Amino acid sequence: MISGERFSVVYDLVGDRQEAMEKAKDICLEQTVEFPEELLPSGMICDHVVGRIESFDSLDRERYRTVISYAVETTANELTQLLNVIYGNISIKPGISVREIKLPLSLLTCFKGPRFGRQGLRQLLKIPYRPLLHTALKPLGLSSERLAALAFDCALGGIDIIKDDHGLTNQVFAPFEERVSLCAAAVSRANQETGNSSIFIANITGPANQIIERALFAKAAGAGGLLLAPALTGFDIVREIAESDGIGLPIILHPAFQGPYVLNSLQGISHSTLFGQIARLAGADATIYPNFGGRFSFSRADCEHIVKGTTCFMGHIQSIFPSPGGGMTIERVPEMLQVYGSDVIFLIGGGLFKYGPNLVKNCQYFRSIVEQAVNY
Amino acid sequence: MISGERFSVVYDLVGDRQEAMEKAKDICLEQTVEFPEELLPSGMICDHVVGRIESFDSLDRERYRTVISYAVETTANELTQLLNVIYGNISIKPGISVREIKLPLSLLTCFKGPRFGRQGLRQLLKIPYRPLLHTALKPLGLSSERLAALAFDCALGGIDIIKDDHGLTNQVFAPFEERVSLCAAAVSRANQETGNSSIFIANITGPANQIIERALFAKAAGAGGLLLAPALTGFDIVREIAESDGIGLPIILHPAFQGPYVLNSLQGISHSTLFGQIARLAGADATIYPNFGGRFSFSRADCEHIVKGTTCFMGHIQSIFPSPGGGMTIERVPEMLQVYGSDVIFLIGGGLFKYGPNLVKNCQYFRSIVEQAVNY
Repeated sequence: MISGERFSVVYDLVGDRQEAMEKAKDICLEQTVEFPEELLPSGMICDHVVGRIESFDSLDRERYRTVISYAVETTANELTQLLNVIYGNISIKPGISVREIKLPLSLLTCFKGPRFGRQGLRQLLKIPYRPLLHTALKPLGLSSERLAALAFDCALGGIDIIKDDHGLTNQVFAPFEERVSLCAAAVSRANQETGNSSIFIANITGPANQIIERALFAKAAGAGGLLLAPALTGFDIVREIAESDGIGLPIILHPAFQGPYVLNSLQGISHSTLFGQIARLAGADATIYPNFGGRFSFSRADCEHIVKGTTCFMGHIQSIFPSPGGGMTIERVPEMLQVYGSDVIFLIGGGLFKYGPNLVKNCQYFRSIVEQAVNY
Repeated sequence: MISGERFSVVYDLVGDRQEAMEKAKDICLEQTVEFPEELLPSGMICDHVVGRIESFDSLDRERYRTVISYAVETTANELTQLLNVIYGNISIKPGISVREIKLPLSLLTCFKGPRFGRQGLRQLLKIPYRPLLHTALKPLGLSSERLAALAFDCALGGIDIIKDDHGLTNQVFAPFEERVSLCAAAVSRANQETGNSSIFIANITGPANQIIERALFAKAAGAGGLLLAPALTGFDIVREIAESDGIGLPIILHPAFQGPYVLNSLQGISHSTLFGQIARLAGADATIYPNFGGRFSFSRADCEHIVKGTTCFMGHIQSIFPSPGGGMTIERVPEMLQVYGSDVIFLIGGGLFKYGPNLVKNCQYFRSIVEQAVNY
C-alpha cells in the first residue's frame, strides 16, 4: 500500500535551534496524521505516513532550514491535497515558510503540466527567439467595442499577447461573451493586416460553475488563450483546463489575491515555488507577477528566483514563461533583458498609453525597443 | 448602466499620514481601473468606476484607517470578482489589510448565503440550545473500516458532528467512496442505538472536476454534511454547492492553506472578515479556525472577532457557527463557554483520544462536561 517513494519540501523555520527543531517535528505530524504522537499506531503510519526530517541546518542563529519528506501516497495524486500536505495547517503557524518542493518522477507523472510551455507558446506565436510582448485591455468601465478597438490597435502595433485586464469578468459594461467575441475578432483582423500571429487572452476567472463554459466559449470565439487568477478560482481548475483536449489553449496565471503568500519572508511560500513550480504543476504556460522596481515591492532577487522556478528541472513538466508586469515602462526593457534574457514575456499595461496619443505607434515603439535591444 | 449603489471596504494602512493617504488613493485605482489617473476618460469611469475614499482617520502615528467604496457593478455580482475588488492586486502591496466589508442589500441579494446557518443546523441535529460537539476522524493511514469504527464510537458517545480529518481525501489507505459509505453508515447505526441525530461530514476538498461528484456521492451515501478547504478549492465552489438543491447539505469550512491571510496584522484580511463574512457569503454553515491557547497562534481577541464575523448583520445572510479547534482539550470547555456562549461548535480531534483507552467513554465525558457547564 506504501511504495516507499517520498517527496520533499524545503522549509525555513524561525527560532533558536530548539524552537526550530520543535517546529520541524511538529510539521511532520501536523501535515500528515495531526494526532498525538504517543497514541499513533505502530507500523505503517509511524514508519511511513508521518513526515520525516531528512536534514536540519542552521542558516543563522534565528533561522533554520529543514527538508521534510512525505510518502507520495499522502497526496492521493491530487494537486489540492499535495498543496495541503506541503502547507495546509502549518500555514496558520507563524515562522514556517516553504522554500522549494522536490517531487519524484512517480509523483510528477500524475500531472501533465503545461500544454504549451515556452517552446509551444513560441511555436504558436511564431516567434522563435525574442522576448514576447504582452499588454492588458483596460480600464474597467469601457464598452466591449472600445476594448476591442484597443485590442485591434495593440495587435496592429505588434503586441503578441493581448489580454483582458484581470478585473474584466462579466460586468455590465462589457459582458464576457460580447467582449471576448469582439476582442478575439479584432485581433484576428489585425493579424490579417500584419501577418502576425498575435493572440487575445480571455479572462475566465469567475464563478466555479461557469469557468469551463467560459473557456469553451472563448475557444469557439477565437480567443488564443485564457487568463486565470488561481487564488480566486483554486489551482486545480487550471489543471483541469490545461488537461482538456477540448479546450487546448495556453493559460496565463495572474497573481491577484496571492500577495500574503509572498509578502513576508518569515512565512508563506517562496516566489519561485508559488509563481514557478506550483504554476507549472497546475499546467500554466506563463506566470504573471510584479516586476522589481515597479509599483509593487518584489526585489530583483525575488524575480530572479521566479525565473528559476519557471525552468528548474521537474521531470517532463515543461518550462514556462515568466511575465513580469505592474508599472513596467518601455525604458526599462534593456535592464530587464539583462535579468531575464530573451525567454520572458514583457507585460506593459497602462504604461503603454503614456507614450503618446496613438496607441498603435506606442506599441510599435515598444516592439522596436525590444527588437533593438535583442539585436545588441 | 451604473445604479449608484456602492459597497465599502474598511482598510488599515501602514505608514505616516502622507504615505497612508497615497496608499488609499492608489487602492482606488489599483482595485478598479488599474490605469494612469491622468489618462482616464472623464465621465462614468472617473465618477463611478474608480474607487472612492469615504473616510480617512488616524489610528496612531503609523497606522491609518480608510473606508473605500466601489460601484457594485465592478463585481459583476460574482464572488470571485468581489474578492478581487476587495483585495486582488493590493494583496501584493505591503501594509494594506482588509478589516471589514460592508455590502448593500442590492449586492447581498446576489448571494444566497448559508442554506442552514445556526438555526438550520440546530434543527437538523435536533439540539436547540447547547453547544454542538465536533470531532475529526484520524490519523491518516487508517483503513476505511478503522475510520468507520471510530465514527461509530464517536456517535455512540454522543458527538454531534463527526468529520473526516481535512487531510483525508482519496488516499489508497481509505478511498473516498469506500470511506464515506462506511463512515456514514456507521454514524447512522449509532444513531439507531442512541436516538441522536449525529451526522458524518465528508471531506470533498479535491480535484476541481470531482468536487460536485463527491458531494453527490456523499449525499447518496448518507453523509450529513460536507467539508471544504476554500484556500485549496476556491471560495466559489462552496457557493455553488450551498446553492445546489440537489446537494442540500450543511457545509463546514476548514482553514488549511489560509494562514498567510491572517498571520500578519499589517496585511491580509481580518479574522472576522475571512472566517466570518466571506465564509457566510460563500454559503458555509460553520467555520473552523484555530482556538486561542491551542497549538496555533490566534489570540482570544482574534477568536472573539471571528464570532462577530459569523453573526454581524448581513441582510438575509444567516449567522453561522464558529467551530474553534486545534489542540483543544475538554478541560478548556468552561473557559470557552465564557468566550463563545452556547452558539459554538467545539471541535476536539486528537485530544479526544487522550482521556483513556475507551473512545466512547471519552466522548461521553466530553458531552457531560459541556452539558454540565451549560447547566450552571
